[in-house]
Amino acid sequence: VGEFELLAKVRERLTEGGPRVRVGSGDDAAVTVPGGATATSVDALIEGVHFRRELSPPASTGSKALAAALSDLGAMGAEPGEAYVIVGVPDDLDEEGCMEVLDGVKRLADETRTTLAGGDVTRSPVLLLAVTVVGHAAAPEDLVRRSGARVGDSVVLTGELGGAAAGLRLLQEPSLGEELEADVASLLRLRQLEPWPRLAEGAMLAAARASAMIDVSDGLGADAGHLATASGVRLRIDLDRVPLQDGVAELAAAAGVESHVLAQGGEDYELLASLPPDDVREAQAALDSRECPLTVIGVVEEGEGVELSGPSGPIDPLGFDQLA
Amino acid sequence: VGEFELLAKVRERLTEGGPRVRVGSGDDAAVTVPGGATATSVDALIEGVHFRRELSPPASTGSKALAAALSDLGAMGAEPGEAYVIVGVPDDLDEEGCMEVLDGVKRLADETRTTLAGGDVTRSPVLLLAVTVVGHAAAPEDLVRRSGARVGDSVVLTGELGGAAAGLRLLQEPSLGEELEADVASLLRLRQLEPWPRLAEGAMLAAARASAMIDVSDGLGADAGHLATASGVRLRIDLDRVPLQDGVAELAAAAGVESHVLAQGGEDYELLASLPPDDVREAQAALDSRECPLTVIGVVEEGEGVELSGPSGPIDPLGFDQLA
Repeated sequence: VGEFELLAKVRERLTEGGPRVRVGSGDDAAVTVPGGATATSVDALIEGVHFRRELSPPASTGSKALAAALSDLGAMGAEPGEAYVIVGVPDDLDEEGCMEVLDGVKRLADETRTTLAGGDVTRSPVLLLAVTVVGHAAAPEDLVRRSGARVGDSVVLTGELGGAAAGLRLLQEPSLGEELEADVASLLRLRQLEPWPRLAEGAMLAAARASAMIDVSDGLGADAGHLATASGVRLRIDLDRVPLQDGVAELAAAAGVESHVLAQGGEDYELLASLPPDDVREAQAALDSRECPLTVIGVVEEGEGVELSGPSGPIDPLGFDQLA
Repeated sequence: VGEFELLAKVRERLTEGGPRVRVGSGDDAAVTVPGGATATSVDALIEGVHFRRELSPPASTGSKALAAALSDLGAMGAEPGEAYVIVGVPDDLDEEGCMEVLDGVKRLADETRTTLAGGDVTRSPVLLLAVTVVGHAAAPEDLVRRSGARVGDSVVLTGELGGAAAGLRLLQEPSLGEELEADVASLLRLRQLEPWPRLAEGAMLAAARASAMIDVSDGLGADAGHLATASGVRLRIDLDRVPLQDGVAELAAAAGVESHVLAQGGEDYELLASLPPDDVREAQAALDSRECPLTVIGVVEEGEGVELSGPSGPIDPLGFDQLA
């Protein structure tokens, strides 16, 4: 198909009505009436840098690109609103593959009630997605920043870590999963390929007076460091308390690395937040309704940076040396 | 430099305060309080597809990526607000080159009073920019769509066409410019490398009751076709009336093509609009204050599609066959 025809098909899939959308794409720009405050985040997923096409099905790639962007809205406690998606299509991806990418975007958009308000398609040397998401809140103060952590706050983490890094290793070397049950291995791969953005949980943490919040995309130590720097505090985190996804410990053993290396691997898109110790129980109760564990993994102290400790003592928060 | 250090530098350059910005990038998302209606558009510039690094200096590439996105806001008559920029940096672009790209973005942002509210940098196999721009208006009705052209309206064009296509040919084959004066050739190259988004002119056309508007990025015939289709009308355009940038005719002669081929080449980022004949003079007077010509080049008729006529009769509106 020609670029114009493909563009028309893409626009059709990438455009829909939404509560705040007055004009969808197909015009020069999408027109919305936001009201209140907006949170806007951009993210790109580039073949050969962030994913490999032979390991990631087209629909997963589309879903993950949107998920990574939406995760930033979750980390602000914003309600998801609109998404704008640029798809760069290489010559060797056929129309079917291109539509599968879009279907992946669309499916997650539907599941998260995000309006696809605009998009564009272009030729590209590699498959790439550039996603802009806009979230909403009644007022700027309702959005949780990275900079509000206070000394004495508890450091809490949603869900479980390590699955994305373990899933990547499984995809790269399937034999590592020989000892795993099939559904456990499958969920590890899915965590890498199609992460889920913690939008509802982020909103609940915001409502439960989280003082600071960030999503764990770069890795626990790195993202805790971003939060510590923005807040002008130190985060002391006990890696022994970090819940690991089912199969991570077994996969780590098979791969000959310590579990905390996988827990530090990033891309799990869980939320790391600080909040007063007295508010932890209320937050846990709220997230319990989503069947999402909320675990106290550390404390906010005076100082700077991150102190990570594991079973055998201190651990490099960035963990670069340990990661292949 | 490492990716994190470069990221920090990029974020510093890509982030600033703006009238609607409460939290700049560096947090998970930028926070704004838009008020009224917003127009949002996305655009990507990818090396090897939209530009060649050996022909386009880094600053020009940055500027053009933002200009192409802002031009869509001009075509809505929106006031420029915020921009979010993803830069994909290949291994063979050094830090200086990367900063020059950002300087190009920043310079045009300053000149157009656009706030750089967020951005990201990532490794990439080729240099690429993905830009999201958000423009503002008091109400959705103030933004001019493609779909409002009415039978009997005049079709008007800002500025002059052909410069971008002529400039590209000059860059590709400098000897074509041997007969051109140096400053004329220089302005042709500049038109290709650093187009200017018609933001003020778009706002003036909106205020002068333009019934429909689009920017000429794909080419006059193609973009007129988009407007005709969206409005359910036919546009009859006389190519003889289309003003050509200085040097386009000479360059066309040197290249052995007809001038209208270059006028159809796209990327000039002029605005094509329809408005009632009685309102043309007021619009011309307004744009005169910007020293921007506004030329009646056609009329809106019943029917569909575009009828382009030149000195030797009808011309294919898409002009694909004529373009190398």
